[in-house]
Amino acid sequence: MSKGILFVLSGPSGVGKGTVCTALRGKLSELVYSVSATTRSPRLGEEDGVNYFFKTREQFLDMIQNDQLLEHAEYVGNYYGTPRDFVEKTLESGKDIILEIEVQGALQVKEKFPGGVFIFLLPPSLDELKDRIQGRGTENQATIDHRMSVAVDEISLMEHYDYGVVNDEIDCACKRIESIIVAEHCKVKR
Amino acid sequence: MSKGILFVLSGPSGVGKGTVCTALRGKLSELVYSVSATTRSPRLGEEDGVNYFFKTREQFLDMIQNDQLLEHAEYVGNYYGTPRDFVEKTLESGKDIILEIEVQGALQVKEKFPGGVFIFLLPPSLDELKDRIQGRGTENQATIDHRMSVAVDEISLMEHYDYGVVNDEIDCACKRIESIIVAEHCKVKR
Repeated sequence: MSKGILFVLSGPSGVGKGTVCTALRGKLSELVYSVSATTRSPRLGEEDGVNYFFKTREQFLDMIQNDQLLEHAEYVGNYYGTPRDFVEKTLESGKDIILEIEVQGALQVKEKFPGGVFIFLLPPSLDELKDRIQGRGTENQATIDHRMSVAVDEISLMEHYDYGVVNDEIDCACKRIESIIVAEHCKVKR
Repeated sequence: MSKGILFVLSGPSGVGKGTVCTALRGKLSELVYSVSATTRSPRLGEEDGVNYFFKTREQFLDMIQNDQLLEHAEYVGNYYGTPRDFVEKTLESGKDIILEIEVQGALQVKEKFPGGVFIFLLPPSLDELKDRIQGRGTENQATIDHRMSVAVDEISLMEHYDYGVVNDEIDCACKRIESIIVAEHCKVKR
């Protein structure tokens, strides 16, 4: 049996990674979604091993120490990361797995897993991205400006990715990603 | 405007390249099909520039001399080849072009056009390929054996290609090739 392929879906904050990933999961039932580890407390209804692998701070730091995470980051006081073990076991079983992560995290994964396929989700335009960030309606102007400048920096990192997919319509973006998955399975070098 | 992409569809004789290519053309109207040059005489209903570019032997030899062919071969006393000019003009106009050619010809194209995307069409199995070659019902056992041994040699050249597509069902093979076309357009390096 051939091994599965690791697909990493990333892109600037606000581009719609989560929405596209959820839509893809609905369409491709055989695609496994990577479960992150986190030190934050479970919210109502969240299950260990389904929504997240819930870890204590000590457990998480041990995982970092033992190279058991493909990437990790700290966000508002909690750690988040991608357990290597879950990814490797899924690939060994012949199934594809998809990771939806931030741009910096994806570059960490690329170092540890150069055989992965790195997909960068792009906004149709910077104006459109600004609309989407503003559209959340939860942030003031300084925060919006800061997030836009971070997004522009992140977009410049696209050159490290294999594919760039424009998220104009969720359905079109999903179809492009589905095509990338099919094409990667046809590659002779695999 | 971005340039088009050259797709080369090849594979062993009997694998169904022509059938798959015709089916693709029916589905993807924007895909341009490369027109070959030949020294053979036009058959009834064949138009110059549509079915073939009809050339005299002298014209054809001049084209070889002037590097105006991406590949060429002689077959039962006539020359066949792929005019470079038609391919380059199509790509410059932003359209994709597909070439359906023999394995050796495809490798000649690769030398002159390394930016092309090389797709190898595979039979589901060698038994299936033998059935298809025999199924034509026009050849004796020695010819069939010879063609099978050529096919096995040709399949060993697949490593020089980018993608391998199994032609189990024409419709499935077409969908895989369509996915490859979409995915190649998403590649960051383009």
